Amino acid sequence: MNKLFFRNDYGEGAHPVILKKLTETNLEHTCGYGLDAYSMKAAELIREKCGRPEAAVHMMVGGTSANMIALSAFMRPYEAAISAETGHINVHETGTVEGSGHKVLIAASKDGKVLPEGVQAVVDAHTDEHMVHPRVVYISQPTEIGTVYSLNELKALREVCDRNDLLLYADGARLGSALEASEATATLRDLAALTDAFYIGGTKNGLFFGEALVIGNVQLQKDFRFMIKNRGGMIAKGRLCGVMFLAAFENDDYFAWAKHANQMADIIRTGMEKGGVKQFIATTTNQVFPVITREQEKALAEKVEFEHWGDIDENHVAIRFVTSWATTEEDARALAMMMEAL
Amino acid sequence: MNKLFFRNDYGEGAHPVILKKLTETNLEHTCGYGLDAYSMKAAELIREKCGRPEAAVHMMVGGTSANMIALSAFMRPYEAAISAETGHINVHETGTVEGSGHKVLIAASKDGKVLPEGVQAVVDAHTDEHMVHPRVVYISQPTEIGTVYSLNELKALREVCDRNDLLLYADGARLGSALEASEATATLRDLAALTDAFYIGGTKNGLFFGEALVIGNVQLQKDFRFMIKNRGGMIAKGRLCGVMFLAAFENDDYFAWAKHANQMADIIRTGMEKGGVKQFIATTTNQVFPVITREQEKALAEKVEFEHWGDIDENHVAIRFVTSWATTEEDARALAMMMEAL
Amino acid sequence: MNKLFFRNDYGEGAHPVILKKLTETNLEHTCGYGLDAYSMKAAELIREKCGRPEAAVHMMVGGTSANMIALSAFMRPYEAAISAETGHINVHETGTVEGSGHKVLIAASKDGKVLPEGVQAVVDAHTDEHMVHPRVVYISQPTEIGTVYSLNELKALREVCDRNDLLLYADGARLGSALEASEATATLRDLAALTDAFYIGGTKNGLFFGEALVIGNVQLQKDFRFMIKNRGGMIAKGRLCGVMFLAAFENDDYFAWAKHANQMADIIRTGMEKGGVKQFIATTTNQVFPVITREQEKALAEKVEFEHWGDIDENHVAIRFVTSWATTEEDARALAMMMEAL
Amino acid sequence: MNKLFFRNDYGEGAHPVILKKLTETNLEHTCGYGLDAYSMKAAELIREKCGRPEAAVHMMVGGTSANMIALSAFMRPYEAAISAETGHINVHETGTVEGSGHKVLIAASKDGKVLPEGVQAVVDAHTDEHMVHPRVVYISQPTEIGTVYSLNELKALREVCDRNDLLLYADGARLGSALEASEATATLRDLAALTDAFYIGGTKNGLFFGEALVIGNVQLQKDFRFMIKNRGGMIAKGRLCGVMFLAAFENDDYFAWAKHANQMADIIRTGMEKGGVKQFIATTTNQVFPVITREQEKALAEKVEFEHWGDIDENHVAIRFVTSWATTEEDARALAMMMEAL
Repeated sequence: MNKLFFRNDYGEGAHPVILKKLTETNLEHTCGYGLDAYSMKAAELIREKCGRPEAAVHMMVGGTSANMIALSAFMRPYEAAISAETGHINVHETGTVEGSGHKVLIAASKDGKVLPEGVQAVVDAHTDEHMVHPRVVYISQPTEIGTVYSLNELKALREVCDRNDLLLYADGARLGSALEASEATATLRDLAALTDAFYIGGTKNGLFFGEALVIGNVQLQKDFRFMIKNRGGMIAKGRLCGVMFLAAFENDDYFAWAKHANQMADIIRTGMEKGGVKQFIATTTNQVFPVITREQEKALAEKVEFEHWGDIDENHVAIRFVTSWATTEEDARALAMMMEAL
Repeated sequence: MNKLFFRNDYGEGAHPVILKKLTETNLEHTCGYGLDAYSMKAAELIREKCGRPEAAVHMMVGGTSANMIALSAFMRPYEAAISAETGHINVHETGTVEGSGHKVLIAASKDGKVLPEGVQAVVDAHTDEHMVHPRVVYISQPTEIGTVYSLNELKALREVCDRNDLLLYADGARLGSALEASEATATLRDLAALTDAFYIGGTKNGLFFGEALVIGNVQLQKDFRFMIKNRGGMIAKGRLCGVMFLAAFENDDYFAWAKHANQMADIIRTGMEKGGVKQFIATTTNQVFPVITREQEKALAEKVEFEHWGDIDENHVAIRFVTSWATTEEDARALAMMMEAL
Repeated sequence: MNKLFFRNDYGEGAHPVILKKLTETNLEHTCGYGLDAYSMKAAELIREKCGRPEAAVHMMVGGTSANMIALSAFMRPYEAAISAETGHINVHETGTVEGSGHKVLIAASKDGKVLPEGVQAVVDAHTDEHMVHPRVVYISQPTEIGTVYSLNELKALREVCDRNDLLLYADGARLGSALEASEATATLRDLAALTDAFYIGGTKNGLFFGEALVIGNVQLQKDFRFMIKNRGGMIAKGRLCGVMFLAAFENDDYFAWAKHANQMADIIRTGMEKGGVKQFIATTTNQVFPVITREQEKALAEKVEFEHWGDIDENHVAIRFVTSWATTEEDARALAMMMEAL
Repeated sequence: MNKLFFRNDYGEGAHPVILKKLTETNLEHTCGYGLDAYSMKAAELIREKCGRPEAAVHMMVGGTSANMIALSAFMRPYEAAISAETGHINVHETGTVEGSGHKVLIAASKDGKVLPEGVQAVVDAHTDEHMVHPRVVYISQPTEIGTVYSLNELKALREVCDRNDLLLYADGARLGSALEASEATATLRDLAALTDAFYIGGTKNGLFFGEALVIGNVQLQKDFRFMIKNRGGMIAKGRLCGVMFLAAFENDDYFAWAKHANQMADIIRTGMEKGGVKQFIATTTNQVFPVITREQEKALAEKVEFEHWGDIDENHVAIRFVTSWATTEEDARALAMMMEAL
């Protein structure tokens, strides 16, 4: 069982910095449900980092829950979200958005990224009350396949949203990795400025759990805590998220951890390049998608935990390695050497 | 700010035993979403303690979420739950059950406990397809006001359920306290045997968060993980709940912590008795409801954190003290003396 | 099978005036889904009768559907309706409102009528995000038991709504009967002025089916046709409702038919008075609730179709007679004589 | 305004045979909500025609409502329907299925018809609880674009459903036209035998409104009337549908009317062929899709009411003519001549 672990970025507990803060504050008495001083302080800190003092910040227990609660709070029953076909809400949330009553419409995308012209086409196709009314464009930064929206791409999406009275929402399950990617051109402040709401993922970047939902658009902020509770997303010891996000952001560790994860992925990518192993899709974030043969996959699986991503052709498959704050340089180098030697 | 803290049983983090186990296992790699060995082991242990080897055990993130997911999994769209008027699902979950599409019907209750004849009356009143169809009786053990169903009372509820093809579901947010109450006659095994499903509350008895849902009725078990995910209740690091429940149950600490909380409440109750302070409702669990004057409430609030429960008459109010694993004997004795001296 | 028919006011087809208009217009070609000239004309006529030129008028297929679509359009997911315990949405719609995600809260009522102080008490009891947020007061005019809100009672409800930022919605399934009742003090214009929305019931007053929903509050009008379609309430031959409502209102027959129904009920009430038969609740509308013995009920059931309403005591029951546009004076007098002779 | 009307098949009222029966039975007293003798008789007759004596037959108010109520009754919350991209539930029902909580998955289709291999691919792609669980294959007979599933095609769909524990549901909004199409190989009995449920559309074939839902699979029949009411689909004068379906089927007029509609379309198709006007998709049912130039469309619109279907290229468009029981041979010939002369 001493395989190298590259299966995902949620395979361990919390970063020691997080655990330390939880331990230090463990016996303090606070009020419940996220109204404590830690949650307030974390929210304030996040508002500052985002440069949006008017934003509402809510600590959510998980990404699927955050997406559903936000989207269903922002839409009326006949309104729909627009997503890439590969979007997490479309594929990997067991119909949670539909479960809250809303259709997910598919816009054309490239490299996992929603195209503005795809959004426009969806809007243009929905003309009357016999069809749903598109209302929110859902993107994730980075995307499901680890690609990153550039600042210009985000601006173009904002523009198509403004033109069509659409909201722009970003799922940031791995936001740290996108912000610290070598190709990154959009900062946290850019994202906060260009979206109506987005969340900063904690689960996949060092926290036990928790995502900080930032609702910049003041018109979407009303009664949001009612929505969280109504959808089953409010926990009694809400201060946990406050403590954890405070620990992650008070020294900007959140960014450092994500940068580390990207660097570990870079080591693997370098190994792949040396070994002539192609990427299914080129990424600079913490997900790497080598294309290898079935035999190579089988052999690799003896030594490494990873995910089978998909079949390319009769002989080739794409697999996925994910790095995290918990990935050691030793492990990354070991994997890189395996890839080089394939 | 050095007030005594008796506001609730979720005002601190986790019991040190829990925190220790989380720390010890923190850097281990496990698979996600509750399919790890810790979650499996915790589930197995809980099945054993419950004496129901065929039960499905799922780790849920919170009580409101657990209630809604279970109830909506067990019912078809036109079916309804039956609850006491004071039931948590009826009052304090922001319409989460209704949000999942189901009506909550009110049955007559006494001391916060649903009466079998109340259940029967609800069933009798619902005669055709122009009304909802009652399907699940929802109780909580202990109740919202800290009272405990006796074994005979549970049997009587089971009987009325069987007679009317109803399911029996128990919310165990504070289950430990009910099981360890001096008046307790129903054991964990009794509850497991008499209900179709129930949950063992972790949040209010030492865990950071988490409730272990035990579905004894095999006909209700199908595809339950789909339901959890569909309703936004599945977290990536599912192993956390597994680790925490394992820590709580492997040495039966869960029961010890609850017993401690009850004992701390006993100390307060003794002080009240000595001081001639009446209880709004007599309890043997970790919630105590003194009836005092408004002036006394005001004075007490200077030194103690507690909840205003309700107005009794022009001059009197009921307040609530809650004890927990985290309550020190020193604090309990200090409060008892204040009550004695009222 | 030649029993007298007093079971309900929807036991026949349509008033001949309605049928005639449907026949005359039958082969005309119109566009679908309620956008035809008849629907437009009927809506305009209703706006005029209501004295609310800015109102949106939508033709709905039935009362349950109308209530659910309106209420769910007016509320956000965590918001709740307030109703009398006897309210149709609370008892006789199979949880349709809850099916759309919303709780129905119960306010104290008298004679089937919601009390303003009952509304205020519900509002006062809902204080934070752990509870639903009351948003719409649902009443029916007349009530489920045939009583009628006076103008002053409606004003008092409007007042409590205004004070608490609540909407006022009236179910008018038997609105004609309320407007034409001898005790009536509130006119159609009053109702239109005092509510945010209400519907004029067609099904129970001469139409094959159809209810005209009048949304006076312009802030509630947006995208309402999307809501109707999204909830399954839009039919292709929408013009049918337009034609029928036009027929009912172009010569004010709607009011005449309702008046006739009330008069037929008056005949029965007079017979009851002469015979010393008490009413379960005194009404001046088209529902009459005699209190009789079980033996009398049994004997009567040989000759008359009616509904058993409920048990009063060991020996007495309440039954219900309903009259309509289709009730003949001959039948009413025959029943009156039976009641006189009881 | 004396344009020829080929816009749709719901532009008039009811076939005179229907209207006559409604008129004849108009003043009879019956019980409400579809439990009357007419509804029973119509259901029995439909069971006979379908050759499924065990089927449950329910009269629904409209197609969208019927689809949603059936699909949501057949599925648990995390289950999904499979449809062609052009499927009515996917495009033209304003998210009604999603509004009831269920995702609509898209299977590959050809000529508007769902392909068995497309169904299999959807099933294969949904592997665990992080994705919805495919449960019902939704087809319409004929399809949205007027094509007809052959008997073999239906058998192949049944087979892929059986292999994957899927239900097969057919939307029969224009079922008569499919059954009477010259290319038809599947009879009503075939459809009834091969599906778990389907509906016989009344609205588009001579009734004022109403669709007869036939649930052949006995396991899906339980409490269905509760579902209808819960979703707002039950009307008080339910006997109307009973009367209308009885009128349509007691002399097999339903089939004759549909045949007439197809014949009228044949006349137009012949005209098109003579004029060398291509079809966007070849049909033998009551929808015809000529491909013409923009100038021709503009000119035609002066004399004929029809629908613009879509743009083919810069110069060409597809338009849609729909015929019905109400289309006169005179009008069909007039249009045919116009098409011939294009």
